Amino acid sequence: MDIAALKADLAGIKVEDNPAIVQQKSRDFYWYSPVLKAQLEHVTADLVVSPKTESELISVLKACYRLGIPVTPRGTGTGNYGQAMPLSGGVVLSLADMNEIRVIAPGRVVTGPGAVISEIDKAARAHSAQELRIHPSTYHTASIGGFIAGGSGGVGSINWGGLRDFGNIIRLRVVTMEEEPRILELTGEDLHKVTHAYGTNGIISEVEMPLTAAYDWVDVIVGFDTFMDAARYGNALGLQDGLLTKLISPIAAPAPFTYFKRHQKFFRDGQSICLVTVAPHSLDAFLAFTRRWGAEIVFNAVTETDLKGLPPNFELSWNHTTLRALRVDPAITYLQVLYPFPHQIERIEKIHALIGDEMIGHLEFVRFDGNVTCFGLPMIRYTTEERLEEIIRLHEENGCPIFNPHRYTLEEGGMKQTDEIQLAFKREADPKGLLNPGKMIAWENPAYDYKSGKLFLFKGLQQAG
Amino acid sequence: MDIAALKADLAGIKVEDNPAIVQQKSRDFYWYSPVLKAQLEHVTADLVVSPKTESELISVLKACYRLGIPVTPRGTGTGNYGQAMPLSGGVVLSLADMNEIRVIAPGRVVTGPGAVISEIDKAARAHSAQELRIHPSTYHTASIGGFIAGGSGGVGSINWGGLRDFGNIIRLRVVTMEEEPRILELTGEDLHKVTHAYGTNGIISEVEMPLTAAYDWVDVIVGFDTFMDAARYGNALGLQDGLLTKLISPIAAPAPFTYFKRHQKFFRDGQSICLVTVAPHSLDAFLAFTRRWGAEIVFNAVTETDLKGLPPNFELSWNHTTLRALRVDPAITYLQVLYPFPHQIERIEKIHALIGDEMIGHLEFVRFDGNVTCFGLPMIRYTTEERLEEIIRLHEENGCPIFNPHRYTLEEGGMKQTDEIQLAFKREADPKGLLNPGKMIAWENPAYDYKSGKLFLFKGLQQAG
Repeated sequence: MDIAALKADLAGIKVEDNPAIVQQKSRDFYWYSPVLKAQLEHVTADLVVSPKTESELISVLKACYRLGIPVTPRGTGTGNYGQAMPLSGGVVLSLADMNEIRVIAPGRVVTGPGAVISEIDKAARAHSAQELRIHPSTYHTASIGGFIAGGSGGVGSINWGGLRDFGNIIRLRVVTMEEEPRILELTGEDLHKVTHAYGTNGIISEVEMPLTAAYDWVDVIVGFDTFMDAARYGNALGLQDGLLTKLISPIAAPAPFTYFKRHQKFFRDGQSICLVTVAPHSLDAFLAFTRRWGAEIVFNAVTETDLKGLPPNFELSWNHTTLRALRVDPAITYLQVLYPFPHQIERIEKIHALIGDEMIGHLEFVRFDGNVTCFGLPMIRYTTEERLEEIIRLHEENGCPIFNPHRYTLEEGGMKQTDEIQLAFKREADPKGLLNPGKMIAWENPAYDYKSGKLFLFKGLQQAG
Repeated sequence: MDIAALKADLAGIKVEDNPAIVQQKSRDFYWYSPVLKAQLEHVTADLVVSPKTESELISVLKACYRLGIPVTPRGTGTGNYGQAMPLSGGVVLSLADMNEIRVIAPGRVVTGPGAVISEIDKAARAHSAQELRIHPSTYHTASIGGFIAGGSGGVGSINWGGLRDFGNIIRLRVVTMEEEPRILELTGEDLHKVTHAYGTNGIISEVEMPLTAAYDWVDVIVGFDTFMDAARYGNALGLQDGLLTKLISPIAAPAPFTYFKRHQKFFRDGQSICLVTVAPHSLDAFLAFTRRWGAEIVFNAVTETDLKGLPPNFELSWNHTTLRALRVDPAITYLQVLYPFPHQIERIEKIHALIGDEMIGHLEFVRFDGNVTCFGLPMIRYTTEERLEEIIRLHEENGCPIFNPHRYTLEEGGMKQTDEIQLAFKREADPKGLLNPGKMIAWENPAYDYKSGKLFLFKGLQQAG
C-alpha cells in the first residue's frame, strides 16, 4: 500500500498519520462485545483523511482507487459493531468535517454527513421549532451519516418506526468508488441500496432527513415491583394513540439502582422501571393514564427540584443502558432481540424465565410495520462465548430473532442472508471492493452458508503489525 | 314555559325569536338519516340565545334553571344525529359567538367553544406552523365545542386515534346547570364526563386542545379496479410508520365517478379509489410505496395544473362522502361500522359480499387502541327501515359493531349501555335534567333495556305545534 504516494496526491487535504490518533480514529464502541474486542483490538488504519467538501472527498476517492487503497468511512465512531473499523488498514475517511447544515424547511433538513445529530436539532429548533424524528442514544456525539449507514432506530421509533421505513430518510447523495467517481441522488426505493450498508458501497456526501415538531420533552421514570409489570405498562402506554411520547423503555432490576448511579436516589434496590419521555402537552393525560394503571412515578423532571448532574432519560436508554452497566460491571455484555408482534409480552416473559438472573431485561418499545411492539437489549452476565451462543440459540428457538451485536459483518448482525440490493449496488459503485472491506460477506464470499452456524472470518482482516 | 319572563331576564344578551330562524337553528344534519328525518322534522326551540362571554352564559343558565326551561347547546349545527336539536323545545343555546382564540403555545391552543375549527388552524398556523390533530370533514363550519361534545374522530385519526383517547383533549372548562352555576376545570380522566355527551351534563365554556405540526398537506387519489384492492392498499399504507399521512379513505365504485362530480374527469366509471392526504416531505416516499404496490395515481394535487373548483380530499371523506352521494341520489343513507383489528380486511370482504350492491363501501383508516384498522361509513341504498335494521343485524352478526347514525340518543348511537360516568356527572351538574333533554336514555328511563331491540322514544319529544 503506497501511503506515501497517497499523501502526495492529497496535498491540501487534511490528513493524520500519528499512530496513536490513527488508532483512536480506527475504533468505535466495538468493545461492548467481548467477542469483537478480541477480534478487532489490533485493527488500525494507515492514515486518517478528513475532507471538508464533496470535491475534496472525490479527490480522496479517486486517489485511493488509483492506488488500490481501502477506504473505510467514519462519522464520529459511535457504532458498536466495528462498522467504521478498517479491517484491511488503508484510509479511515473521516466525514466529521463535512458537517454543514445547509437547508432547514418545514418537515426537512439537508446537511453534510458529518453533522452531529444534536447540532442538527439545535439548528432546526432555533429555525422553526423542529427536530429529527429518530435519534440514537449517542445524540450528542453521533453523526447523521453514521447513523444512517449503521443505525436502525432509536429514540422516536415509538412514533416513526425505523430508518428502513419509507419516509424516514428523504434523500441521500452518494459518491461512488470508481476511476471517475459518480455522484448519485437516491430517493424512495433506491435508498435501501446504501442505508445500513456501513459505507461498503458508496460514500454519503449529503443527507436530507424529515423533521417533526420539537417540544420541551419531559423525562419521567415509573417504578415497578417486577420487570414484567414494567413491560406490560410500557406496552399499554405504547398503544395510547393520543399520548405523544418519544421513549418507552422498561428496564429490569437490578440495573436501575445498581447501574444508573446518578439517578440512584430515586430508586429502591430491586426496583424495575420504565423510562418515559413525553411531550409537555401530553404530560397531564400521561399522568392520568399512569394513575389508572396504579403505577408509581419515581422521577418527574417537571417537579424534581434538583436536576443537576442527571443525564436525560435517553442517555439511560437503548445502547446507553449497556454502557452504564459496563461502567459498573465490565463483565456485562448484551444482545439485540426483536419480540415480534402480537406475541411480545408472552415471549418476553418466557425467555426471561428460561434464562433467569444471567440476563437483565431491557426493552425499547417501537412501532414496527405499523404495530406497537418492542426490541430487547438485554444485559448478559458474560461467561464464555459458547454460553453466549447458547443464549442466542435459546432466543431463536423461542421465537425471538436476534440481531447479533457480536459480529462485524452486515449479514451476521442483521438478516443472516445476502442483501441482493446492496450487493448489486456494490458491484456498480465499488467495482474494486475497496470500500470498508470485510463487512459484506456476500461480496467477500458469495458461496458463504449463513446457516452453517460458523463465524465468518474475513481473510483480509489485517493482523497486528 | 315562560319565554316572556326569560326574555326579560336576558335583557342585554342576544336572543332570536323569529320562528324561521329559530327553526333553522334548531336543526342539524339529522336529515342524513331517513329515520331521524321523520322523527325530528318538527322539532324546534322557542328561542335562540347567543351569549358572547362566559358571564353571559352563566346568566342564561341561571335564568333557565329558575324558570325550568330546557337548554340545548349548539355549536354550528353540523352534527348528524340531532345532537343539538331541542326535543322539548325551550332554548337553543348557540355558543357560536363564544369563539375567541385565547392562547396558542407549543402543542396547545385555548379557545372558546364556538371557535370554528378551520379558524383555529388558521390562527395556529400563522402563529407557529401548528394545527389541530384531528378534525371532522366539516372543517370549515364545525365548532370545536360541538366536535368535542358529539364527534369521535376524523381527519388525523390515522395518526392520533380518537377524541376519547387520553391526550387528544387537554382541558375543558364546564359550566353546570344549577341555581348557582359552578365552573369546573376538567382534565385527564375527568374529561370523559362531558366529551361526547351532547351537552347533556354541562356547558363547555372553554377548551384546551393539543396542536401538532402543520404542513402544506398534499391530496392524492389512487385508483383501483376493485374496492377490496383499495381496502388492502389503504391498510398497508396505514401501517407505513414513516409516511406521514392525515387521511386514508378507500371508497367503492360507483361512488367516485357518480357522486364526486367535480373530480369526475379523473375517474373511470366503475373505478374504486383511495383518498390520501400526505405531508409534502413524505410525498416522494409515498409515491415509491404506491409504485411498489402497482397502484395508479389518478390525481396528484402537486402535479395537477387546474385545481379550480376542486374540494380538498377531506371534503370527499368521512361524512362528506355520504353528503355528496345524497346530493346526487336522495335515496342514499349510511351506516357507521367498526371493523375490529386484526380482522378488518376479512370482515370488510365478507360483509360487502353478503350485502352486495345495496351497500357501497367506504372506509376510513384510523389508529384505534394503538392498532391500525378502519371504520366504515358505507352508503346504503335505502328502501325501508326494516331492511336497514336487517343490514345492521347482519353487520353485528358478522363481527362488525355498528354505531347507529339513525338514533338521536347517546346510548343507541354509541355503546348501547349506560355511561355511568356521564350519568353520575349529570346528577351533579344538571339536577333538574334541563340540559338537552331526551338524549341520555340512562337519565330519562334508568330501567331501559338496551337489548330489547326496541327504539327508545323520548316521551318529552315535543310534538309539532
